[in-house]
Amino acid sequence: MKPAAARLDPANYPVAIEVETRFQDLDPLGHINNVAMAALFESGRVRFNMGLGMRPERRAGGRRWLVARIEINYVGEGGFPGLVSIGHGFGRVGTSSWEVLSAAFQGENCIATCDCTLVLTGPDGVEAIGDDHREILATHQFSS
Amino acid sequence: MKPAAARLDPANYPVAIEVETRFQDLDPLGHINNVAMAALFESGRVRFNMGLGMRPERRAGGRRWLVARIEINYVGEGGFPGLVSIGHGFGRVGTSSWEVLSAAFQGENCIATCDCTLVLTGPDGVEAIGDDHREILATHQFSS
Amino acid sequence: MKPAAARLDPANYPVAIEVETRFQDLDPLGHINNVAMAALFESGRVRFNMGLGMRPERRAGGRRWLVARIEINYVGEGGFPGLVSIGHGFGRVGTSSWEVLSAAFQGENCIATCDCTLVLTGPDGVEAIGDDHREILATHQFSS
Amino acid sequence: MKPAAARLDPANYPVAIEVETRFQDLDPLGHINNVAMAALFESGRVRFNMGLGMRPERRAGGRRWLVARIEINYVGEGGFPGLVSIGHGFGRVGTSSWEVLSAAFQGENCIATCDCTLVLTGPDGVEAIGDDHREILATHQFSS
Repeated sequence: MKPAAARLDPANYPVAIEVETRFQDLDPLGHINNVAMAALFESGRVRFNMGLGMRPERRAGGRRWLVARIEINYVGEGGFPGLVSIGHGFGRVGTSSWEVLSAAFQGENCIATCDCTLVLTGPDGVEAIGDDHREILATHQFSS
Repeated sequence: MKPAAARLDPANYPVAIEVETRFQDLDPLGHINNVAMAALFESGRVRFNMGLGMRPERRAGGRRWLVARIEINYVGEGGFPGLVSIGHGFGRVGTSSWEVLSAAFQGENCIATCDCTLVLTGPDGVEAIGDDHREILATHQFSS
Repeated sequence: MKPAAARLDPANYPVAIEVETRFQDLDPLGHINNVAMAALFESGRVRFNMGLGMRPERRAGGRRWLVARIEINYVGEGGFPGLVSIGHGFGRVGTSSWEVLSAAFQGENCIATCDCTLVLTGPDGVEAIGDDHREILATHQFSS
Repeated sequence: MKPAAARLDPANYPVAIEVETRFQDLDPLGHINNVAMAALFESGRVRFNMGLGMRPERRAGGRRWLVARIEINYVGEGGFPGLVSIGHGFGRVGTSSWEVLSAAFQGENCIATCDCTLVLTGPDGVEAIGDDHREILATHQFSS
């Protein structure tokens, strides 16, 4: 159930993005709430995609991608204020879907990992990933 | 990757709880955002626990439980306004952790499923689940 | 600075709408956070508008309205779980803007009031409110 | 109804704090939602207070402060991704309450102003502001 040790090492993620905690992220125990953690991962992931020239919303020709699955493993407790550094890399790539693997760190500590599966869709439903897109996925892989 | 068919049938969940969507849940595409879906599942789960006499926060003797893992599979698109009916049942039970399985429906449609692993902790770390607690878990199982 | 006594009486609001609190609304002190209160007011207001046949988003002919100003006075502390009953009525009406006045109650207690100014805009900027719209505003006034 | 011109000039605020937008802040029109704007102002204000040695939560002797009133004027539209620079300064100071005045900028544009009234409370209710606290308020005034 616990993430593999490789997932807790920031060096294995090709791109790190810093996202900021908010006071509103805190729950009644004074830690970053688990839903707020999902919001931090979402913002990091969207900025990771944007940084690679991939946009999260409607694409040329009605193409867009959808979040099909999110798995978050909570490894430690996060706090406010301060930044969370989120490492990002791509995981498995299928015909029309791919994984974004990420892990969030405050200081030296991993506080959570996230596995997100995205699916490419077009006007007629699920679509195959094109070559340009596939190239970006191949060159920014999570590597354990 | 897709949830098993049994997970999409509201009849397999012993307890249904209605939670309310908010305008703020909508994303730029006009659907319930995936993070907002996590917040809906959280509120349903807390109320499910409360309804069974289980409380989400600090317990007698410093006992509390932590969210260790959340997996959400997004099956369809959700909208505002309106309710989401979330079916809840317990899944696997270990020595000190247990699963809450849930699925969210708008009308006839399942829009997402959620698997949440909770861990019981006390002043000295992880604790074994007691008999009363185990009895509650056993009598409200998800049954496929 | 305190809201007028008339604003704390649910009988003065022509339409009451129940919105639901979420676990995520709680802050480190265990009360409904002030930003979460703003989200509850927003959802109530959107549903109030929808119930009158007014929609919060793009309208025929590129017409829409924008939130120009929100004032919230926090009168008491709110809790989870449970509903918040929000009374709604219209306040001042200008050429192209109008006020929605509301107050949130848990049980007998008013926990907050909200004054929201909305402005009607069209493709060429601010627009005058039409007669149908004005009629709706006139027949659902907050009355002290 | 519109904020005074002085409120739209970043030079009038003694302390600027940068806060980060999130994808989740976007509404169906693709702009920063008005409730999300309230969350951005809250985080900026808490960090402004912390930077002055003032803490937002329980204080020595059961002293804490409460948000009594928030007024936000929406002046322009905000976007994601990117930072919002929020200018902060204190406004009116009373016996036991004080104002935090702020304004949020993206690039050259003011997108919103916020007036927040805080009240100091202790175990026996509202308390008078002490000299140390009053000194901090006096030396970080908004100046038009």
